[in-house]
Parts: sequence; structure tokens; C-alpha cells
Amino acid sequence: MRALRLQEWKSEPELVEVPEPTPGPGQVVVRVGAAGACHSDLHLMHDFEAGSMPWNPPFTLGHENAGWVHALGDGVTGLTVGQPVAVYGPWGCGVCARCRVGVDPYCENPAGAPVPSGGGGLGLDGGMADYELVPDARHVVPLPDGLDPVDAAPLTDAGLTPYHAIRRSWHRLAPGSTAVVIGVGGLGHVGVQILKATTAARVVAVDTRADALQLAEECGADLTVPSGGDAVEQIRRATGGRGADLVLDFVGADATLRLGAAVARTVSDLTIVGIGGGTLPVSFFSVPYEMSVATTYWGSRPELVEVLDLGARGLVRPKTTRFGLDEALTAYHRMRDGTLEGRAVIVP
Amino acid sequence: MRALRLQEWKSEPELVEVPEPTPGPGQVVVRVGAAGACHSDLHLMHDFEAGSMPWNPPFTLGHENAGWVHALGDGVTGLTVGQPVAVYGPWGCGVCARCRVGVDPYCENPAGAPVPSGGGGLGLDGGMADYELVPDARHVVPLPDGLDPVDAAPLTDAGLTPYHAIRRSWHRLAPGSTAVVIGVGGLGHVGVQILKATTAARVVAVDTRADALQLAEECGADLTVPSGGDAVEQIRRATGGRGADLVLDFVGADATLRLGAAVARTVSDLTIVGIGGGTLPVSFFSVPYEMSVATTYWGSRPELVEVLDLGARGLVRPKTTRFGLDEALTAYHRMRDGTLEGRAVIVP
Amino acid sequence: MRALRLQEWKSEPELVEVPEPTPGPGQVVVRVGAAGACHSDLHLMHDFEAGSMPWNPPFTLGHENAGWVHALGDGVTGLTVGQPVAVYGPWGCGVCARCRVGVDPYCENPAGAPVPSGGGGLGLDGGMADYELVPDARHVVPLPDGLDPVDAAPLTDAGLTPYHAIRRSWHRLAPGSTAVVIGVGGLGHVGVQILKATTAARVVAVDTRADALQLAEECGADLTVPSGGDAVEQIRRATGGRGADLVLDFVGADATLRLGAAVARTVSDLTIVGIGGGTLPVSFFSVPYEMSVATTYWGSRPELVEVLDLGARGLVRPKTTRFGLDEALTAYHRMRDGTLEGRAVIVP
Amino acid sequence: MRALRLQEWKSEPELVEVPEPTPGPGQVVVRVGAAGACHSDLHLMHDFEAGSMPWNPPFTLGHENAGWVHALGDGVTGLTVGQPVAVYGPWGCGVCARCRVGVDPYCENPAGAPVPSGGGGLGLDGGMADYELVPDARHVVPLPDGLDPVDAAPLTDAGLTPYHAIRRSWHRLAPGSTAVVIGVGGLGHVGVQILKATTAARVVAVDTRADALQLAEECGADLTVPSGGDAVEQIRRATGGRGADLVLDFVGADATLRLGAAVARTVSDLTIVGIGGGTLPVSFFSVPYEMSVATTYWGSRPELVEVLDLGARGLVRPKTTRFGLDEALTAYHRMRDGTLEGRAVIVP
Repeated sequence: MRALRLQEWKSEPELVEVPEPTPGPGQVVVRVGAAGACHSDLHLMHDFEAGSMPWNPPFTLGHENAGWVHALGDGVTGLTVGQPVAVYGPWGCGVCARCRVGVDPYCENPAGAPVPSGGGGLGLDGGMADYELVPDARHVVPLPDGLDPVDAAPLTDAGLTPYHAIRRSWHRLAPGSTAVVIGVGGLGHVGVQILKATTAARVVAVDTRADALQLAEECGADLTVPSGGDAVEQIRRATGGRGADLVLDFVGADATLRLGAAVARTVSDLTIVGIGGGTLPVSFFSVPYEMSVATTYWGSRPELVEVLDLGARGLVRPKTTRFGLDEALTAYHRMRDGTLEGRAVIVP
Repeated sequence: MRALRLQEWKSEPELVEVPEPTPGPGQVVVRVGAAGACHSDLHLMHDFEAGSMPWNPPFTLGHENAGWVHALGDGVTGLTVGQPVAVYGPWGCGVCARCRVGVDPYCENPAGAPVPSGGGGLGLDGGMADYELVPDARHVVPLPDGLDPVDAAPLTDAGLTPYHAIRRSWHRLAPGSTAVVIGVGGLGHVGVQILKATTAARVVAVDTRADALQLAEECGADLTVPSGGDAVEQIRRATGGRGADLVLDFVGADATLRLGAAVARTVSDLTIVGIGGGTLPVSFFSVPYEMSVATTYWGSRPELVEVLDLGARGLVRPKTTRFGLDEALTAYHRMRDGTLEGRAVIVP
Repeated sequence: MRALRLQEWKSEPELVEVPEPTPGPGQVVVRVGAAGACHSDLHLMHDFEAGSMPWNPPFTLGHENAGWVHALGDGVTGLTVGQPVAVYGPWGCGVCARCRVGVDPYCENPAGAPVPSGGGGLGLDGGMADYELVPDARHVVPLPDGLDPVDAAPLTDAGLTPYHAIRRSWHRLAPGSTAVVIGVGGLGHVGVQILKATTAARVVAVDTRADALQLAEECGADLTVPSGGDAVEQIRRATGGRGADLVLDFVGADATLRLGAAVARTVSDLTIVGIGGGTLPVSFFSVPYEMSVATTYWGSRPELVEVLDLGARGLVRPKTTRFGLDEALTAYHRMRDGTLEGRAVIVP
Repeated sequence: MRALRLQEWKSEPELVEVPEPTPGPGQVVVRVGAAGACHSDLHLMHDFEAGSMPWNPPFTLGHENAGWVHALGDGVTGLTVGQPVAVYGPWGCGVCARCRVGVDPYCENPAGAPVPSGGGGLGLDGGMADYELVPDARHVVPLPDGLDPVDAAPLTDAGLTPYHAIRRSWHRLAPGSTAVVIGVGGLGHVGVQILKATTAARVVAVDTRADALQLAEECGADLTVPSGGDAVEQIRRATGGRGADLVLDFVGADATLRLGAAVARTVSDLTIVGIGGGTLPVSFFSVPYEMSVATTYWGSRPELVEVLDLGARGLVRPKTTRFGLDEALTAYHRMRDGTLEGRAVIVP
């Protein structure tokens, strides 16, 4: 079968022929319907090197995948061949307290995972291929009626990551509250949709680019604000002076973190989702009282089930552009050049 | 000024002239903009008698009120004359643990309240008059921009009551969940709107009347089901066989409670809002495991602030018919006869 | 090996020789260190008949087990032979949303379970034998340091069941609150210990028997009250007239449920744990506003991990009497006659 | 009457004669039973200057007070002369959403407060006097039976502040979890007591001073660890390698914040209570995933009621040393010199 493989660090992936995988006991092979291309793949190609991660190339890219069950290993129950499924991407040890409830991103025994701190497309073979081997059937999540693999694939990361970041702050998002989304890109625009679908919070979107603000509006943002200038004043005014109950920073740079802290309310959440390399200095008088700063990473398996429900009902619908497997490199080049609209989805 | 007063038990109220109230220290007089007419007023007129409640007529009807600040007593801060406001209806003792956080319906020291287990329009003079005396300024809640008293009045009971019943079950209403609304009347149709505005739960509405189901659809219900027949099967099928995560019974009769228990999921809430006189026998094997049965009564002051925000943003909009103060009896007659559409609002 | 088997309905179990089990893929055989004897076993022997459950004898009794890993099936990770473990008792389908997070008692696909609505000792072979076959390794829970199988066994049911019932009400059990435990038997006395270990609620224990009240005191109850007489008044007085925030009914008879509703506060939980055959009629005016009535059944796997931690640290310590496997019938006879102190634990 | 007044910035307070206060409408005068001396008073005397706060001397010190109701202003209900009471210290505007539920420390309209961001002893006259004027009766909290003003006073700050910081993290403190207390001083040792009284978390205490660790042990700490050296390794080992679920930093210096982040688990809380001037740089890879960093400030009125209950039942008992009003300066000197044991309480 065909597979887009990262052959070594500091290189672009190559489309090559590899043997079709066979499922061992408890494993599943998925025929790939779609695999999302993610910014973090660019880091894999260009920025990482031996020692960056506990694993190394070669492996097939693609950690945002959906398709159909192709083959079941011994002992797998609850799945049938041909059934449309999403692949839950973070693969933990399966036996620690976190993994037992499907919170693999925070696995506490990475040494016991198929690969430490990774998964398909991240150290192990991923979904940019005709087939993907999933090493534990619990990572295979049936799609609800009305959702096909192409629409489902981006939900497994570009949907799940903002969903987790929002869900943990639901208790702050009662009517009258405000959520600020900084950075309306591949994850941020889905974040706006999720906020609108699951809460009655006012949603304020901030970005440097006019077209991103336009996209935020289409996704339902109540107010869009260009970064810089009087952004802080505009946002505080929109909250009646109180500040935002939740700030989601999908950029994560110094400037966006500073903006986030400046518009947050006392007793609020400032959640860092974007890996923009920024740092927020937190001290007693530098940030609002009881503003909680935290990073989040991906989401849980039960949360993926919930995101898929939102997708099936049309309440969350990432904007995507499709590419064939042989066009995957083009997709990454456009992503790198900023000429890609929405999420790139590779359809083998 | 004019006031619609219940002069004695077992009688219809009369529109009479009474002296305009004057605010004492800490009190507020509100010029009434609108007063909702409620089914419970019919009970006051027809079903109650001496001993039914810890209070007796005469008093002015109307416990669902909004208007403008008319006069402020000594020591009142945070309000200005002319400001549009809603009147929070349940008036507790003000000093017990519940009242201290604005949860007056569950006041634990009724003997310390202006009138035990009552309020304006319920033992004390209410809002079906040109002016209403509010005995504690904390019950006067400023209206948010964009919401006028006529739209606000029904939110203080027909909005607040379902809002409280829904908000306490938010943790059950993640995507993939189902909420069932039984009885799409004055409160039920607002309940559907609140569910849609604040959660991503699927909403199933049940009623005997086709026009009520039509109203539920307009309010956003995902599925409407006529009572009786195979209602239970239809609802369970719509939940993938699992049952509903929340059942709100706005009727509260034996049959609706039985229906509620039959469609509920294990680990769910069956919440009795309607005072239909029914009883649900609860035993270990008669209801689903960990289905929590509870009544709720009205809502808290902070919740009213949240409901008003939903109203101001057009996310919740009770259907109403307006009447003059001199037409109030007509409104009650139509309510009794079932020919009233939505909530009757008396506009002095 | 020896096994105490229920050979047919309406009979006492027999100690017989059966073949030692062998683990299939994903399965584990546990060498039994201790197996608790439970009241529900008496129901199995005396009250059930064909059709009572979706399964029938013969099977080995014992659903409250701990021991040491004896043999591991193919593909099992995270366990080692000889390791002390508890057996999580409720065995669901493993793939529904509930089982995925270890909430097997509320499995939504019982047809997919090893046996519907059962487990080891409940339709399948249990722990009153030298060895027990556990059909899925996820049900095998390592013991924390300092806890041996004999102490651990009763925690898997007599500990886990009250723990679950209490944990779901923690949000009501802030300082100043009161929890009432009705019935200080095998589960109730552990309930008192768990309340004291995990909350600062005042604990009131109610029972008909003086020695049970004595046991409650030893377990840390702040107040003990004999049933009947002025029990309601005593309890309400102890709560400053407000009523209890949580009532745990470990009996579940008509009278205890009535007592529970009479002493509960508005906005509280009345939780039915005991299967005493009682019924509580719930209507709008018969119980305190927003008192939530619910049954609970057993507990989740993550909760078992937490209970075992309490056991290892000596914070929860069920009172037990030990019997050999050949004395098991004696244990049941004494349980039936009410001459057993604490929980009977069978030590093979 | 006598009053210990800060007459100007950069000076020590003086004991002077001032007129006895008289309560206006809605106000209360409390005869002071005890007033705690707090580290922040030293900052008031030595570090602040014009512009530091929105208020200036002169005013009477003492923001941690309890006593007996001495005189009631017009319109005050629910209190009686002679009744023992605590004074809730943070005085907000009384009408914003936060103050309406007794969360004055996070008042969103400080301009509407008696003094912005202050209270009795902080810009207004406090409790180091024979009598204190409390400008709103809602700040006067009746003492539960069994708690006298001398024991109650330190609970209003040295008790309430750690209580709030702990209570907001209760959901992380299930059995099996670990809480780390850094800095076992006036607040920290009470924090250890509160953790033990309200949760089953393991408590690890860290300090530089051997006597502080000794005090932590007396308060129930499960493990005490001297700062520095291999403190991080010791603490992580005590958590089975996972890290702490809650870190309470009662120091708030650079080094303690760094320690906190080094011992925290993924998905945890690092709460900064101490005003030690430190800063924690937070970025995507510098702290554990989803470790939430936040400051907290004092606590809410309902939380004070809960702390007083813990005090009345002997579950929380700050260590104190008593001084007369004329010995107050001595108390502050010993506090400054580090020769004070526990909290200094001034008893007029």
C-alpha cells in the first residue's frame, strides 16, 4: 500500500510503498478515509532532531484519522468490518489511572505506551496511507450516523483539542459570561463553533488577519477584534468592564499571552493551547486574582465521542480543503506558506 | 393608583383604587411596566382557603414583574430612579445561608421573611398595579441593555423556573445527551429555548396537543412526540436505546411522571416542575439506577440575572399575549379556558 | 481445586472439586486470598428462581474478592504473577460509554457482557474457590502497599458501594452539613468511616439495634439515634432545624425511606442503597423541595482504586470475621441469624 | 475608647483614645473580643506609602476580628445585642454579582465599597480597639456554639484564606491524591489542618525551619520535607512518581514557586497564597500539562461560615499567642523578628 513516510529528521516525507499491516490480538486495521494535516507535522519535518522525542523516523505521518474498519485482531469486540470509525490519536499505556478512563494525553506511564508520548503519525505509523494499524481497539471510535470519515478526521485533533480546552471551563460559561478566542486558525475557528454550540457565552474573536476575523464571524463570534491597537479596551468594554471568563490562546506567543492576561476577569481561566513559544510571567500582582493559567494537550476519548456527535449534527464543522495522498506535500507547502484555507485533509 | 386585588379566598380579583406605596429604608417602589399572569394565580382565586398558606387576602396579584425604579428608600445604593428593572419574586428572610446567596425560594427561616413562603402577589402586594413596593432593594435587578420590562416580566418566573431546573442538570447535558420536556406550555416552551441556548443536548418535546408540539418545534426541539401511544419507544429509540439524561416534567401528573421514569437513562435526572398533583412511587427496582427524582421551585437571584441576559440577547423569548390592567380578568378567563397563546402579560 | 458452588436455585451451595481455570487472551487467574460473604448471596440461595436473573446456576459464589495474580493470559500488560490484587466485581460489556470509563454497574449494553447484569459470583464463577478466572484484565486492580487481600476483599463491595453513594454527594458535604446513615450493618458502618475520612460533615447514625449504634460510634459517628420514637426530632434538632444534606438509607424499607424524607433538608440527597423492598411516594408537596431521591448500585473501577487507598492507610477498615472455605455455610447461617459481627470473609 | 491606630505611612501604630462609634442604619458596632495581628500589617507600617493603596492613614489596625454585638443600627435584623460574632473582613460594594453572593474579595465595583479594595483595618477603622464599626450588617457572622471570639478571630483571615484556597481544589483531592503545603507559618499550619479535616488527601509539608515541620506534623501532615536538597525527589517519590494534585504556596517566592511546579502532577493546581514577590514563568513546556497556576485572595462569606464550623468542632485550631491591646507593638516586633509562635491575637 501507499504511505507518506517521514524517513529521517530534517526532511520532507516521501510517498512510498509499504506492506499492508495485519492486526495482532486486540488490534484493528483501519482503511483510511481521511487524514488531517497538522501544523505540528511541519515541526516534525523541519524542527525536530534525534533526541527531540523519545522516538525517531521512519514512520508514516498523519495523527488525525478516520476511515472504516478493515480487519479485526483476535479478541476485539464491539466493532464490525466496514464500520465507519475515527481513530483516537493519543496512545497511552492503557493501564494507568488516566488511560483507564480514556485520558491518554496525560498518561502517567509513558514507558508502557506503544511509543512514549506519541501515537500513530507521531513515532508510529499514522493515517497518511491506505491503511493504518491501531494497536489497541479502544482507540477505534465508531462514527455516529450522518458523519463520514472525511468530515470526522479533523475532529479528532482540530476538533478535540479546542473541545477539551473549552469543556473544562464550562462552569465559567454561564449566560452573561464572555469567552475570548485568540487566533482564529485551524483550531481557533472550531473553538468558536464549539463555544457557540455548547454554551451561551458571548464569544469574542481576536486575530491579526481580516479574513480570520471574517471566518470567526461565520462561525458565530459575537464580536471580532483586530489584535493590537485598543484590543484590550474593546474587549473589556464588551464585558461591561469585568473582563473575560475564559481566554483561549490558540497562538501562545508572548504578545497573545499578555493580551489574554490583560482582558481576563478575576476568577477566570487563561488556557494556552497554541505552541507559539511564549511565556507568561505569573506573580501575585501581575495577573487578575484567581485567573488560572494552564496549558492543555489534546483531549480524552469520551470527549472525542462528544465532538463526533457535534459533527454529526452539523453543530461543529471544520473548514477543510481536500488533497489526494499524492498531493500531501502540496498541502504542507501551502500550510507553511499560509495560503491554505481551513484544515488540509488528505483523502487516500 | 389602580391595583388588581384578591379581596378574599374563593373569589375573582377586583380592580380597585389604593394609595400609592412609599418606600421605607432599604426599600424600592417600582413603576410597573408589565406583570405576568400565572396559572398559580388561578389556584389562588379558586382552590385556596384560610389555612392553605401562612397568609390571607387581601393583596394585589402579580408575582412576575418588571418596570422602572420609581422611588428609593433611605440607604439604597446601586439603583437610580427611572432605571428599568425586574423584580426578583421569591422574598426570603434575607439572613439565612440560602438567602445570603440569593436562593430565597429555599429560605430556611420563613418566619423572618416579609411573609412566610410568599412574596409580592403571594400574600403581599404584587405587580398588577401601577406601582409595586419591593421590601428589600436586593430583589430589584437592573435590566441589561436591550431588554424592556414587557419582555422581562415573564422571564422572572416562566423563564427563571425552567432555567433553574435545567441549570442544575447542565453536567448531564454534554453533546450526545438528550433532554426530554414534558408539557410545552407557558414554562415548557421556554424550557426548550433555554436547553437549546445553553447546551448541545438533543431536545425531545412531548405534549398531548399538536399546537404545543408545533410551538416546541419553533423553539428548536429536535424531536416532538405526541403523548401516549408509543411515546416511550419513540423517545428511547431517539436516544439510541439509552434513555434521556434529563426529563423535565412541566405537568407533574401521575401519567407524565410514569412516562418520565420510563424514558430516563440510568444516572439521570427526573425533575418535577409542574404541580399537577401526581406521585411517582420510587423503589429499588421501579426506576432506573441512579435516576434522581426531585422537585424544584422557582430559581435564585443570580440565575435571574443570567436569564435576563439570555432574554436581552434574544436567545430566550417567551411567547406572550398582552392585556391592559382592566383586561386582566379576561386574561385569566382565557387561561382557564385554554384559549390563551403563550404567557399573558398585563401592561398597566 | 475447591469451589463453593450454587448448584441450583432454592438451595444451599456445596463445596466441590472443580478443574482449575486457565486464562484465555486478555484474561487473568487470581489465587483467591479472601472472598466476602454478602447478604445478596442469601437472596441467591433462597429467593431467586429461573427467570429472576438473565443467568442460572451452577456457578461458584463470591463477588467480593482479592488475592494474588496466579496466571496471565496472552496480551495482558501491567500485571505480574504474585502481585496482590483486588477483583473489581461488576463486569460490563467493556465497550459502551460507561464501561470505557470503568462504570460497569451501569453498562448500557448488558448483552455484550460476559453475563448480563452479573459477574464473578453472580452467574459466573466467583471467588469462593482456590482460584478465580477474571475474564478481562481491566477488572484486576493492584493493591496499594500495606493492604493485604483479606482486608481488601470486603472493600470491593461493602466498601465500594457506600463509597460511590457518598462520593456523588461530596458537593453537599461541606463543613456545617450533616449526613445521616440509616442502618449500621455491613455496608453502613463502612459508610460512617468513609464519611469521616473524606468530609467534614457531621455524621448521624440511626439503627434499631444498640450494638449497631455502638459500632457507629466506634466508626466515628458524631451522634447516634435509635430508630423510632422521636428520631426525626432528634435529627432535625442536631441540624439546627434545617435537616440533613445527605441521607443514606442502607435498609431501604418503607419506614426508613419515610424517615429519610422526614429528616432531609431542601436541596439534599436521599440515596437508597439497601434493597429492603420499600417504596417512597414522591410528589410536589410530600418531600422537601429539591431533595433528590435516587438508588445507587455498586461503584466504578476508579472509585475502587480510591477505596483501596483509604484501606491501605487505615482510614477505612471494615469489621470482619474470618472463616475457612469449608466453614462458608456457617458464615451464611450466622449472617441469616443475625449473629455475625461485621462482614464475613472466607479465606480459602 | 482605646484604639491602635496607624497615624501615617512609614510609622508604627499608636494606642490612642478615640470616640466610641455609633451605628448608622444597617450598621453594627461590635465589642471586640480579639483581633489577629497579620504579616500584612507589617507591610502597612513599613512598606506602603501614599499611592500604594486607594486609601491612607489614619485608621485603626486589625482586619481579623471577632467579639460580641454591641449596638445595632436601624433596620438590622437577624442579630441580637450580646451575641458572639465574627467580622467578615473584605468589604465590597455589596451590589455587584460577586458581593451579592458574599464574594467581596473579588468585588467588581470597588468604587462602590466603603473604601476601595480594603475594609476594617485596611483603610477603615479595624478591630484593634475596644469597639469596631461594621458598615454593613451582612459582614457580621454569628459564631456557632462552642466557639468563642478569641478562637474565632484568627479564623477570619488565617483560617479563611487557606480554606478558600483548598476548597476550590477539593475536586482534585480524592483518596490517593496528594496536597503539598509550602511554608508552614501562620496560614500554612492552618492549611494542613483544613486539608486533613475536609479531605483524605495525603498532606506533605515543606519548610526551611525544623520547628515549622514539627508544627506541620502536629497538625497532621503525613510527610514533612525540609526545603532544598532533594525535596523534589522526596515529594515525587511520595506520590508514586505522579506528582502532587494541589500545591499551596504560602510563601510565594521564586524558589517556592519553582519547587511547586517541579512537584506538581499533570492536571493539578498550583495556588499562590503567599505574597513573597516571586514570579513563575509559565510556558507550554516549562510546567506540567494542565497544571493551573492561580493566586487567591482571602475568601467568601459563606466560606467563613464553614471555617467557623470547623473551629467550633475543634477540627481547625490555629496556634495562637495572646497579647493585650497595650502589648500589640510587642506582638508585631516578635512577628517581625520571627520569635512569635503561631498567630498573635490581641485581646482588648
